[in-house]
Amino acid sequence: MSLETISTNRAFGGTQGVYKHASSATGTEMTFAVYVPEHAEGAKLPVLFYLSGLTCTHANVMEKGEYRAACAEHGIIFVCPDTSPRGDDVPDDEGYDFGKGAGFYVNATQDPWATHFHMRDYVENELPALIAENFPVDMERQGITGHSMGGHGALTISLRNPGRYKSTSAFAPIVSPLNCPWGEKALTGYIGGDKAAWREYDACALIEDGARLPDLLVDQGTGDNFLEEQLKTRLLEEAVAAAGMPATIRMQEGYDHSYYFISTFMADHVAWHAERLKA
Amino acid sequence: MSLETISTNRAFGGTQGVYKHASSATGTEMTFAVYVPEHAEGAKLPVLFYLSGLTCTHANVMEKGEYRAACAEHGIIFVCPDTSPRGDDVPDDEGYDFGKGAGFYVNATQDPWATHFHMRDYVENELPALIAENFPVDMERQGITGHSMGGHGALTISLRNPGRYKSTSAFAPIVSPLNCPWGEKALTGYIGGDKAAWREYDACALIEDGARLPDLLVDQGTGDNFLEEQLKTRLLEEAVAAAGMPATIRMQEGYDHSYYFISTFMADHVAWHAERLKA
Repeated sequence: MSLETISTNRAFGGTQGVYKHASSATGTEMTFAVYVPEHAEGAKLPVLFYLSGLTCTHANVMEKGEYRAACAEHGIIFVCPDTSPRGDDVPDDEGYDFGKGAGFYVNATQDPWATHFHMRDYVENELPALIAENFPVDMERQGITGHSMGGHGALTISLRNPGRYKSTSAFAPIVSPLNCPWGEKALTGYIGGDKAAWREYDACALIEDGARLPDLLVDQGTGDNFLEEQLKTRLLEEAVAAAGMPATIRMQEGYDHSYYFISTFMADHVAWHAERLKA
Repeated sequence: MSLETISTNRAFGGTQGVYKHASSATGTEMTFAVYVPEHAEGAKLPVLFYLSGLTCTHANVMEKGEYRAACAEHGIIFVCPDTSPRGDDVPDDEGYDFGKGAGFYVNATQDPWATHFHMRDYVENELPALIAENFPVDMERQGITGHSMGGHGALTISLRNPGRYKSTSAFAPIVSPLNCPWGEKALTGYIGGDKAAWREYDACALIEDGARLPDLLVDQGTGDNFLEEQLKTRLLEEAVAAAGMPATIRMQEGYDHSYYFISTFMADHVAWHAERLKA
């Protein structure tokens, strides 16, 4: 698979790059960002995938996420994909919460979305292969995290692929698309009305159905406007408690849903992943 | 002077705010950002002013500057003004390097700029008074820094006000508007053709004319596209050497002119200011 470099900038001793490629998963061009810290010639570094939230591209976390200092310190490669296919021939919705910028990390089965909206395939299969081929990564040491819709992506992808990710965390994740308006709209649109088919795209349902992670870190702001109606952290607390699954779920007083919140706890998350990826 | 709060977000234990007010210096509304770290009730904190570069508003460094972790660590308030007056009745130029977004921290004397382009008055007088009145700052402990055009602003304002700023630094500053195309265009436009009048807006000329700082920190990337034609760090090196003025001027291998460069060295600068502001 060939990769085109859009830009590289030296940062914190390493290189922040932006790349694009023709994606077979989405049938579109896809753009992503990768930060590679300074490293010894020939070294293979652990890699942390960060899945972004609604409306975002690769650029939001790259500009506002403040992950580079921590990744440089711990020697972690940080990968930021886009949140949906893009382009003039990709269908869209007038809402910010469906269509472009809102791929929900699913493989769509419903028209007109089924043609391009295969973000599950993209993030689970095509992107990791591309990263393995083009960057100095040790694919035995992968972690995954994300924000909001991307937190949902990180949790569900990790839960569906036991053992692949050595570490999993999330910032203000959507924990149960079955139980919130964002999830209802997106999964009805992409997957259709059969809610049994939604369970593989719902972290709480996956845990109820037997999926487990060795542990999990979640930060959630108490001042987040989406907490009550959309994010519903308590459903995850209940699911992990019922399953006896280890999880550190921290309610952070006064923090909202923005990158001011994410950047505040980013270094904590990178350190938490580093501890597991380098164990 | 009354201040309107546009937004506040909790970040790194403190508050990132954005405010606007009617400015008497510019005759327009002005917007600025202030980060206040967590502090003891009644405490007065040191304050660091950051002046932005061409095309920027208060928002660029607020989103991409990565100063909050270091300011929280050292207990420093961080203030980010806009780079020019704004509004429909403010004249502009079609270039990115003159007019809106390019106030150059001067008091314009030439029409049509003389009506609103008083960024020197704004940053030297009005803004500090507003900050002193509305935030928990110790105005005996002020520092100043900035990037590119804002580095020029920081250096010249500090050199013209001996003793006011306990610490001065700059990222990739324009060190001599008398000797670069950006300076030629801006100062001719704002101040007119008499180059004797430009010397108070030229860090190297101010030093040649006897102004001194107790010390100075400058970082400059060697991969910065503007280094040779516009920034000319060597002129500052020559001026401080000739004056016997202490200065730490660091050429940073491979770094460019972007916020990837600035954010990399931001924590260093905040620590350097903190050491002097808290001495």
